[in-house]
Amino acid sequence: MASTSLFPIAGIERIAVCGVGLIGGSIVRALRALKGSVHITGLDVDAALLQRLLAEGWIDEVAEEGGALFGSHDLVVLCQPVGILVEFIEEHGASLGAGRAVCLDVASVKAPVAAALSQGGPAAVARFVPSHPIAGKSLHGWAASEAGLFEGKRCVLTPDVGTDRTALETAQAFWSLLGAQVGTMPAFEHDAVYAAISHLPQVLTYAYLHSLAARPDAREWPAYQGSGFVGFTRLGSSDATLWADIAVHNRRPLIHEIDCLSDALALMRHQLSLADAGALAESFDTARQFHAESAPPAGAPAD
Amino acid sequence: MASTSLFPIAGIERIAVCGVGLIGGSIVRALRALKGSVHITGLDVDAALLQRLLAEGWIDEVAEEGGALFGSHDLVVLCQPVGILVEFIEEHGASLGAGRAVCLDVASVKAPVAAALSQGGPAAVARFVPSHPIAGKSLHGWAASEAGLFEGKRCVLTPDVGTDRTALETAQAFWSLLGAQVGTMPAFEHDAVYAAISHLPQVLTYAYLHSLAARPDAREWPAYQGSGFVGFTRLGSSDATLWADIAVHNRRPLIHEIDCLSDALALMRHQLSLADAGALAESFDTARQFHAESAPPAGAPAD
Repeated sequence: MASTSLFPIAGIERIAVCGVGLIGGSIVRALRALKGSVHITGLDVDAALLQRLLAEGWIDEVAEEGGALFGSHDLVVLCQPVGILVEFIEEHGASLGAGRAVCLDVASVKAPVAAALSQGGPAAVARFVPSHPIAGKSLHGWAASEAGLFEGKRCVLTPDVGTDRTALETAQAFWSLLGAQVGTMPAFEHDAVYAAISHLPQVLTYAYLHSLAARPDAREWPAYQGSGFVGFTRLGSSDATLWADIAVHNRRPLIHEIDCLSDALALMRHQLSLADAGALAESFDTARQFHAESAPPAGAPAD
Repeated sequence: MASTSLFPIAGIERIAVCGVGLIGGSIVRALRALKGSVHITGLDVDAALLQRLLAEGWIDEVAEEGGALFGSHDLVVLCQPVGILVEFIEEHGASLGAGRAVCLDVASVKAPVAAALSQGGPAAVARFVPSHPIAGKSLHGWAASEAGLFEGKRCVLTPDVGTDRTALETAQAFWSLLGAQVGTMPAFEHDAVYAAISHLPQVLTYAYLHSLAARPDAREWPAYQGSGFVGFTRLGSSDATLWADIAVHNRRPLIHEIDCLSDALALMRHQLSLADAGALAESFDTARQFHAESAPPAGAPAD
């Protein structure tokens, strides 16, 4: 299908973005920064924000409700927090299957998206390409969004066996257009990997800070902090509600990771209690070696 | 006592540095970068390194053994790893008490230093000012040392009730001269605070990486890392033997911190297992609030 639009992806002239926070907002800004015109429709719980974005020309249209978007747009990108996003898919699965739009999401957890999608039937599954751009920030909302957020970042797609090839190609073209490095992975593997390398570090950071917060004398301690504390607790400023939502939706792999971590910590605690510096140094060195071997190659994207 | 030296601290003309690794080496470099001449004696297990530093003019003299330094120098700075440092104090406590030198150390743990020192008697205690410059780096050894390492960094002194006032003033002048912001704290409080804000983050980082290292499929996972993983695991490159030494010497406060953290993590694991996103968000938010309130004031030193 040849496009008459100047927009760089054939057949994509009308794009709906659902949820214009950090990720959705950055998609809107990135699309506006591109050459070629595209019609952008916005959907959000914040009606005042949508009116402002309309007035400022960021979006061309405010959507009243979600179900109609799949028949009237070429691409629908779901950028809501994961719980709301999953409910949205459950509610509108039939419209998705009956529509013409290719649909993407941006959730940090993919198995619940796939499960919700399967309720919409094969046509919904065929047209939906689950996506996870690895482009978090500690700030959230439209105010934190930026056109260059996806530049050089990884974007993991978790297509199903029933995903339409053209939909997958559209998704790949879309994320590439925004500057991301696109790869694919099975949804269950994605969730296990991100439980380990993203969700557990976030939970551990919160647990560490929670353990300090419980003591009245700890309020003064961070005044003595070194650079180690600063780096280690950087994730502590992340949005608590968003992360509780992500953690609960990925709870099985995440609990497994918490248990693996707890085993390693119990081993070190035991070696400490024996004052066995030699054994403890061996445990520490196993960790150090893994860290050294797993450092990203020079020149790899930092995010 | 008026000094005839050009060195900025009255009465300090001869300084011995024991252990010329990251910290000791940085002290040597900082002293050489100052105006005024000072005689520097080096002691280290690495004889070849000492000969090189002598040939290059970093040090003026190589010490053959430690005990004689306290009678022949004005200031002795102990920069060995904590286990060796404690043994050094135990071995040379009598010489320390009988000598004329003010003595400092740089260990990350202060109660074991105080305990070793007390064996040397009141004269040793009077002349020794336990010090902890908060100036770590992931790299170690002379090669990593730098003259500006202490600039703007905190240095915590943990004087005893029996510490001589002149010795304390010398210690304060010395660390200030090297650019540090000097404060004082009781030794037991120092060890509790640093168990919480430095040693536990280090052990948690190692435990996290250890838990990943145990799984054969985890080797590929960090390829998918975001910036969160990078920051959270930055301490993973620290020297395993040095840190096992520190951890074992501070094991009682550190085990207490591990247990507090484990309680917080168990709470979050329980909330996860119930899929209770509301309760989990509250726990996360307690942590986030503590983080927000404990952020260092703008303009505070970054290390």
